[in-house]
Amino acid sequence: MTRTPKLFVPAITPFRPDLTIDRERFIANSKVLLADGADGLAPFGTTSEANSMSVAERIEMLEALVESGIAADRLIPGTGCAALTDSIALTRHAVQQGCLGALMLPPFYYKGVPEQGLVDSYSAIIDGVADSRLRIYLYHIPQMTGVPITLSLIEALMKKHPGIFVGLKDSSGNWDNTHSIIKAFPELETYSASEALVPQNVAAGGAGCISASANVNARNIKALMAALGTEREAGIAAGVTEVRKIFEGLPLIPAIKAATAARHKDEAYAVVRPPFVRLSRDHDAAIARAVSLAHGTGA
Amino acid sequence: MTRTPKLFVPAITPFRPDLTIDRERFIANSKVLLADGADGLAPFGTTSEANSMSVAERIEMLEALVESGIAADRLIPGTGCAALTDSIALTRHAVQQGCLGALMLPPFYYKGVPEQGLVDSYSAIIDGVADSRLRIYLYHIPQMTGVPITLSLIEALMKKHPGIFVGLKDSSGNWDNTHSIIKAFPELETYSASEALVPQNVAAGGAGCISASANVNARNIKALMAALGTEREAGIAAGVTEVRKIFEGLPLIPAIKAATAARHKDEAYAVVRPPFVRLSRDHDAAIARAVSLAHGTGA
Repeated sequence: MTRTPKLFVPAITPFRPDLTIDRERFIANSKVLLADGADGLAPFGTTSEANSMSVAERIEMLEALVESGIAADRLIPGTGCAALTDSIALTRHAVQQGCLGALMLPPFYYKGVPEQGLVDSYSAIIDGVADSRLRIYLYHIPQMTGVPITLSLIEALMKKHPGIFVGLKDSSGNWDNTHSIIKAFPELETYSASEALVPQNVAAGGAGCISASANVNARNIKALMAALGTEREAGIAAGVTEVRKIFEGLPLIPAIKAATAARHKDEAYAVVRPPFVRLSRDHDAAIARAVSLAHGTGA
Repeated sequence: MTRTPKLFVPAITPFRPDLTIDRERFIANSKVLLADGADGLAPFGTTSEANSMSVAERIEMLEALVESGIAADRLIPGTGCAALTDSIALTRHAVQQGCLGALMLPPFYYKGVPEQGLVDSYSAIIDGVADSRLRIYLYHIPQMTGVPITLSLIEALMKKHPGIFVGLKDSSGNWDNTHSIIKAFPELETYSASEALVPQNVAAGGAGCISASANVNARNIKALMAALGTEREAGIAAGVTEVRKIFEGLPLIPAIKAATAARHKDEAYAVVRPPFVRLSRDHDAAIARAVSLAHGTGA
């Protein structure tokens, strides 16, 4: 089956020079991303530096988004933490805010834990939230977590909790893995983490992408989705891939924030929290080129 | 130089059947570990399942320990989290409680971050705590964090913040790495994570050990430290290693909790939080043997 492809943006979290969260720029930029044509936002993901933020900060900023007028049913906030009690608190809050779902990392500190322990962890979150509105998007990013979401785990979770697990983001970058998930679980909305994989993702029955570089290039990624199967596809895909490659050659998150700063002509957007380091000005030309490709021609 | 070796126990955190923290058993068992002869406790470490606990839970339980009459200057709580603001909150609280120091993981979600970003992270914590009493013990456990504490990082931190970094726990299990740290930074208290390495650690000028199995075998590990260089050393070392090997053949944290349950004849101590799974009863005989070796002869 072919779905209408969707783009969710893992929106960056701007920080002030004192490293507190810049609420005003966070809301302003999030609205710009939706105006770019994104179907929704996946705030508090890896690109959002959410793992450098406390539970209280994440709760406050999700409420800020919703209070700003962004529809909660366009939001899939990240809510999976190392600590079980943190994951329960964030997920419960996201459900109470009316979010479309929660994008949930596995508990990521302890490595080599048994599959049963991961099932127990998601079950404890579901039980702790205790709200029938809960919908979970699994988040597979083994290069950060060291705790993979395997096909076997997905199967166990969907069997134990029917109707709760509705999607998955595969950030492994391994198309064979994504393809296996789409084939094994056609009812899941399976997102790639790179727009470069959108054509094969959608052709195989996947749901689209949730990509870091969509922070800069959402309009063209949506244009690519609209052009799939037409004669315009190849040209748009080439342009999207060119932007993506610029970011892949740089420290990704600092580069995405530097590009956001360049786009808005507002250096404040380039601030990162440790353990990241602000992108060196040596890369100004590359960033300018990415922004120009993304926005220069109004594509 | 040879130091008087010390043993800090990364005390387990008991949970109730509903997975909330069992405050009474936590305090009772922590006191038992000190009565066993441990020089102090390193609560909220890896073995303590602290990374499965929220900041609020960790703060509440550290206060419970101190209120119970355990001297804060015998405590080196773990305070390093993925999130910068969590690390600041926990570290500030530990200092305010009068703790001997804070055992601090690097920010452990994001991988491949530059050394400067890790320096910035520790600096932001030091600046955020803003208390001259702060003393930091670095915590190197790359098999969990994926973020190593390299010699180069240690050097940069000690140079930038003289007097703050006073110790290090090397949980890599790589003696060559530990030895390199002891030689490069003789003023640091460098702890091994295994009692099996105590003889070479102390001979090289290290500070002793902070070991998971000390939750069960603290008395014999202290006896080993007292017997170093005497004719009794080899025999005690062999016994200590035998206990250690039993745990190394099992899921470590569930096994340590099962052994604590066996020691106290109180099954409640065996409860773990997901993503761990309670130790199978198939291992009862191995656990009984470890406890018998540790306590059976009143060594």
